[in-house]
Amino acid sequence: MSSKSPQLLKGFRDFGPDKMQTRLVLFAKIRSAFERFGFQPMETPALEYTETLSGKYGAEEKLMYRFKDNGGRSVAMRYDLTVPLARFYSSNKNILPKPFKRYAIGPVWRAENTQRGRFREFYQCDVDIVGSTSAISDAECVAVITEALTDMGVGDFAVRINNRKIIDGVLKFLNVPEKNFPAVLRALDKLDKQGEKKVRAELLEAGLKPDQTKKLFEYLAGSATNAKGLLDGFSEIVSENKDLAEGVGELSDVLDALAGLQVKNVTVDLKLARGLDYYTGTVCEVVLSRLPGLGSIAGGGRYDNLVGNVSGSKEIIPAVGMSIGIERLIEGLEELDILEYDSRSDILVFNLDGKLLPAYLNTVTALRKSGLNAELYFESSGMDKQFKYAEKKKINRAVIIGEEEIRSGQAILKDLVTRKQKKIKIESLIKELKNI
Amino acid sequence: MSSKSPQLLKGFRDFGPDKMQTRLVLFAKIRSAFERFGFQPMETPALEYTETLSGKYGAEEKLMYRFKDNGGRSVAMRYDLTVPLARFYSSNKNILPKPFKRYAIGPVWRAENTQRGRFREFYQCDVDIVGSTSAISDAECVAVITEALTDMGVGDFAVRINNRKIIDGVLKFLNVPEKNFPAVLRALDKLDKQGEKKVRAELLEAGLKPDQTKKLFEYLAGSATNAKGLLDGFSEIVSENKDLAEGVGELSDVLDALAGLQVKNVTVDLKLARGLDYYTGTVCEVVLSRLPGLGSIAGGGRYDNLVGNVSGSKEIIPAVGMSIGIERLIEGLEELDILEYDSRSDILVFNLDGKLLPAYLNTVTALRKSGLNAELYFESSGMDKQFKYAEKKKINRAVIIGEEEIRSGQAILKDLVTRKQKKIKIESLIKELKNI
Repeated sequence: MSSKSPQLLKGFRDFGPDKMQTRLVLFAKIRSAFERFGFQPMETPALEYTETLSGKYGAEEKLMYRFKDNGGRSVAMRYDLTVPLARFYSSNKNILPKPFKRYAIGPVWRAENTQRGRFREFYQCDVDIVGSTSAISDAECVAVITEALTDMGVGDFAVRINNRKIIDGVLKFLNVPEKNFPAVLRALDKLDKQGEKKVRAELLEAGLKPDQTKKLFEYLAGSATNAKGLLDGFSEIVSENKDLAEGVGELSDVLDALAGLQVKNVTVDLKLARGLDYYTGTVCEVVLSRLPGLGSIAGGGRYDNLVGNVSGSKEIIPAVGMSIGIERLIEGLEELDILEYDSRSDILVFNLDGKLLPAYLNTVTALRKSGLNAELYFESSGMDKQFKYAEKKKINRAVIIGEEEIRSGQAILKDLVTRKQKKIKIESLIKELKNI
Repeated sequence: MSSKSPQLLKGFRDFGPDKMQTRLVLFAKIRSAFERFGFQPMETPALEYTETLSGKYGAEEKLMYRFKDNGGRSVAMRYDLTVPLARFYSSNKNILPKPFKRYAIGPVWRAENTQRGRFREFYQCDVDIVGSTSAISDAECVAVITEALTDMGVGDFAVRINNRKIIDGVLKFLNVPEKNFPAVLRALDKLDKQGEKKVRAELLEAGLKPDQTKKLFEYLAGSATNAKGLLDGFSEIVSENKDLAEGVGELSDVLDALAGLQVKNVTVDLKLARGLDYYTGTVCEVVLSRLPGLGSIAGGGRYDNLVGNVSGSKEIIPAVGMSIGIERLIEGLEELDILEYDSRSDILVFNLDGKLLPAYLNTVTALRKSGLNAELYFESSGMDKQFKYAEKKKINRAVIIGEEEIRSGQAILKDLVTRKQKKIKIESLIKELKNI
């Protein structure tokens, strides 16, 4: 084995300089949008007690990376950023602002089937608000995500929104037993990907009778851009059904707040369920208009039971959050050819003559002290190698200093793209470069 | 167990909003310094094949988190950022710039004894240059680290530098068998922490005879700020000893380059060894002048064998790197009371009357669109709660809008620290806030 070069693990990725630079630019834009809305950054460990995470993710839980550590503890790698937030909140709620608005950007690990562009290590970018039942908090999560997407330049997108209580209410009205709700919701979540026929089949498996499925689709067929349009479809049953009344009321308030926050392209989609078991109210997702087939690039919802559930106290601690599916989004932006790698180095100081090294070192240091990103080619060598290095690093300008230039106190500033060059006083070099 | 609130794992930490904000500010400064020197960002996975990491870290290797994944592979959590770089480089060297200058900032995991402020998850901030033997590359790693430290405002620091070949040369001159070198170097590395007496005892255990130990300390007693001073102590043996001649020559070149790059406070310390087995030439560390007892806050060196060793090719691929011990540094900066948490929210829009919600939402949205970080208090409530929230989040200003203000097209801008307030036209609000 020793002569075989070492491999990446399947489902894991290296981010080389170009890809990493792109990711950092996107993360910075996301971070800036999140902070504009008053969300504060937070980070939790990569490892948690398995006990903290288990029982929170439904059937997917088997994808968790878990093992015994050297001290014999059962530990698991972070599976998402939400359950650790709940764990953190339950230990710190007395010292945190109320409500607590936090964001987190970091990797999570799932032993996914690696087909279909799924990775076993991928980043999540989450905003969550813990401790508020206000419809404004739901709307703010949606608004900050759409703001971040706008800042990233992703083009038009559509926001689809719903409330789980409406689906619950319809299911109750149709006399579907509550124990079947999670399976029904997971089936509905597959509508976009698998189509209505397959989902109908899965709904039968989930315990729905054919007439219940038919009715369910009829009731949930409605889509509207405001709450009034919605209510039309439910007027016959809404008054006698608590879940439905609450769901429609909440959705209406969230729609009002979204309008106030100037969030565009919002549509109610009553069939929108989202896959996670723990949602209790608002559910929402965002789709790129130019790439509807990509699936949702952001999503989330309200989960009023999770925090209390994780803390073990079982009290209701209201919470709502949204997450950008950054890996899928980057895939989409690459497909649209929107992402471009932007070199970070402004200039390369050529190294042509070992004797002139003190002048080169002096020049590169002066450039850096002025705030420019500058490099000196390390080995004294011919120009070819140095041009090649500049090209590889996408550096567009070079400073060339020879003995003649040192005598005359000048340097040659060369544009490596146009190959044009000019002589310039060394003192003026920085001024010139900062003005380009 | 269900009523017990879930715990953090021992040796792991949550970074709540204040601590996290501080870390992000420091990371941004480090990143900016690294990019000013032309280092490019890179990231490798949290998990690697155990085989890739094992045999690289010496006896410490037992601290690695390793386990079998769901597919039965032996995997280990990233133990440092250097071995994964070597793995990445060996697979990608044909497409990377030569030399390859990369930085990486990210967590690593070690099942350390958690006493003495050691953590099992901690960040490393590394720069490395692969593919150059030039002394400038050694000097650049040191220069970029000192630049980052300066940008962080850590105050004065001292740079200590040495070359492993000098220690090797002296050991060879003293007829110490090469198999004993690693143990000798590890013993020397403890000089600062444990003092000379304990280290002498450990050197005996490492196979040195008392007269060899005595001679070793005599030869390595020298300290100088330039290479000439150094050579004085070695003139008798340097000519007949290849390692020593190379070591002194390299150190001299690196010192020249450091002077050219205007790195201050550099001292040669011939006893400086650094703990890691894989260093082959330059070794270096940085100590805060105000907190010498803290230990080194940055360190590194040249490791010309590691990349070939990891790739399995055994070819010599020269490399040099330095790392900021960011966790220890933050500890030191906290001790010096230099770090301050800087609120990211500029202003809070008070929510006093549910009927005025559209005006509040409109105002907070306008503030955000102008680039300010702005929040709206979610629930309509009395001022007390909202003052308390602002205080908790260290927000210093509030916008108060009541019915009267809406009628007159004005708002009250309140300074929450001085409690002074003034009326201002809503149109002028943003201008006023951006000028503060």
